[in-house]
Amino acid sequence: MSLAELGADVIRIDPIEGGLDYHRWPVTAAGRSLYWAGLNKGKKSVRIDIRRPEGRELAQAIITAPGPEAGLFVSNFPAQGWLDFNGLRQLREDLIMVNIVGNRDGSTALDYTVNCAVGFPLVTGVPGDAAPVNHVLPAWDLICGLTAATGLLAAERYRRLHGAGQMVRIALSDVALAVVGDLGFISEVQINGSARERHGNHIYGAFGHDFETSDGRTLMVAAVSVGQWKALCKATGIVEAIKSLEQTGGGDFTRDADRFAAREAIVALLLPWFAARTLAEAAALLDADRVCWGPYQSFEQLVRDDPRCSTANALFAEVAHPGIGHTLTPGSPIDFSAAEAVAPLVGPVLGQHTDEVLLEILRLSSGAIGALHDRGIVAEV
Amino acid sequence: MSLAELGADVIRIDPIEGGLDYHRWPVTAAGRSLYWAGLNKGKKSVRIDIRRPEGRELAQAIITAPGPEAGLFVSNFPAQGWLDFNGLRQLREDLIMVNIVGNRDGSTALDYTVNCAVGFPLVTGVPGDAAPVNHVLPAWDLICGLTAATGLLAAERYRRLHGAGQMVRIALSDVALAVVGDLGFISEVQINGSARERHGNHIYGAFGHDFETSDGRTLMVAAVSVGQWKALCKATGIVEAIKSLEQTGGGDFTRDADRFAAREAIVALLLPWFAARTLAEAAALLDADRVCWGPYQSFEQLVRDDPRCSTANALFAEVAHPGIGHTLTPGSPIDFSAAEAVAPLVGPVLGQHTDEVLLEILRLSSGAIGALHDRGIVAEV
Repeated sequence: MSLAELGADVIRIDPIEGGLDYHRWPVTAAGRSLYWAGLNKGKKSVRIDIRRPEGRELAQAIITAPGPEAGLFVSNFPAQGWLDFNGLRQLREDLIMVNIVGNRDGSTALDYTVNCAVGFPLVTGVPGDAAPVNHVLPAWDLICGLTAATGLLAAERYRRLHGAGQMVRIALSDVALAVVGDLGFISEVQINGSARERHGNHIYGAFGHDFETSDGRTLMVAAVSVGQWKALCKATGIVEAIKSLEQTGGGDFTRDADRFAAREAIVALLLPWFAARTLAEAAALLDADRVCWGPYQSFEQLVRDDPRCSTANALFAEVAHPGIGHTLTPGSPIDFSAAEAVAPLVGPVLGQHTDEVLLEILRLSSGAIGALHDRGIVAEV
Repeated sequence: MSLAELGADVIRIDPIEGGLDYHRWPVTAAGRSLYWAGLNKGKKSVRIDIRRPEGRELAQAIITAPGPEAGLFVSNFPAQGWLDFNGLRQLREDLIMVNIVGNRDGSTALDYTVNCAVGFPLVTGVPGDAAPVNHVLPAWDLICGLTAATGLLAAERYRRLHGAGQMVRIALSDVALAVVGDLGFISEVQINGSARERHGNHIYGAFGHDFETSDGRTLMVAAVSVGQWKALCKATGIVEAIKSLEQTGGGDFTRDADRFAAREAIVALLLPWFAARTLAEAAALLDADRVCWGPYQSFEQLVRDDPRCSTANALFAEVAHPGIGHTLTPGSPIDFSAAEAVAPLVGPVLGQHTDEVLLEILRLSSGAIGALHDRGIVAEV
């Protein structure tokens, strides 16, 4: 989808009844998946009975279609049998295939079963609690998807320069393990002999925390630089109190590590200021001093109150989605100066482009297409 | 770093004292940042006094150096003054600049202050709790970084095909807002008039939950497909109990939505099976039936116990990091068949490549480089 939003012609091939994600939540009252509609924006949808040899041959022909802009295939199916890379390569020698697997050995893994293993749920949530807290954002799926987009573009670049296709393999669990290593959590265990603990909503190794306001709202304040720290102290009037705290052995709070060590004392100094103000009052004062902060918002509050989540932000447009209705729809978050922005796109209806793809990509006659329909090898909407 | 791991020659320009992230946690006892070392793997490090005009001119010359592989610039500094895109373009007309900003209007935002606003912390954690729970993974930063890699590769492709450079702008908050929309959470509010609630560790709209074993470990079980669901029922011996539950109005548990609706009853049926077995015993039985599951592991347990997080996985190698020590280090999670895997790389020492870059990229004489050192415009290690 990220590539469709950059203007690529992306064709999604599904079994006649739709893929595993076709009914994934959230869904409308009528059962249409808002998740599927959102993540398939701009793609063409083709329905093929890939359980039958004839359907598999059709799918292979689409995957290996000729042309410099084609022969780029992304799949999370096992690369074996009719999707074996060397088999497909017989049909197009410079094919690029990006294969996403669960674990590197080919065994199954999902975002949920990777996330639990890589440490984060045991350091998320209230200090002192022992139970794991899963993240709700499918972060590993999202990071893996963008890793695949990066890998595909890199392989396409290589093919353009050297003429050769290739297999690009990405394991979801490797994506997560690489992140854990890149962020320093593996070396923290190995070098320091300790590991990050559960710190609630404190920012690790700097200063940041949530605060409740007099109208029952909550906001997050961050001070990960000296500038942000000074702005926070000034806006909330704790400059003198902080000086005293530093002088009585609190440390030097221009240093990230010292602010982190004294985080509870700093939170205690700040609490009354927030408790005495509404969110709007606090916001005005924080913004005046350019403090780095943000409000906690539910999904409803985000949609209702935040101008960034509205057509006031060029990221969004109101778009009609077939079978779903009008909804605020994001485009690509990447803004290219050399290209017109692609307006926010619509997800397809399952099978909407079956005939178009058979006609335009495979150049089948309408008679041949009709025969495929008659035999149930393909289906339109 | 993702691009350095694909073989790109990535030069990081820092002020003499290092950037804001130079001391970011986790750090060693001696204060070396494991975070910085991890996220700058494979980059060349150049120290320049960018507060002085002469330093800025040097940095501009590196940014706009000639050659088809150069003239690619990524920055999260404001694109103004000496980093104004049109100014830089005077030095290299086909420059590609990727500028990451907080909000689209240029105002500041961090992962923390974006995350609180886009809804997830209020649906993370135990149902019934009201307090927000921040994720610990800097997911928005990671997604934004990979979005930037995708944007850079797309712009480089465009330059290769059409000869033109461009400005590529990405706002961190837009990245998060696009994800919220893509996953269907905006349309859930607008179309359904409701929003996702806090469901603890239940998988939304399917079946999945955590279970404690007799040896005090916890594991996550997922059944997001009929195959996974049948495997789970078989392995844990609840096939008959599930049939009864379905017949007494529990629904049709081959449907995701019905499993989700009956999630508490299903969890209750499964609890005793897990409570009667150690993690190892449960693991053997679950694996025998190919159930989709994973253990919860702390960072220590991950490093100590999981073969995926060891040199048994080709993702990793033991690497010596200067000033830090030997540690298990990941390479790129992308495995290209047409290229030798880049072995896991080492982060630079700050300023390690200053002279090399001045010599090889800017082709300065050693006399000129010496003079820059004398005036404190640049620094080596």
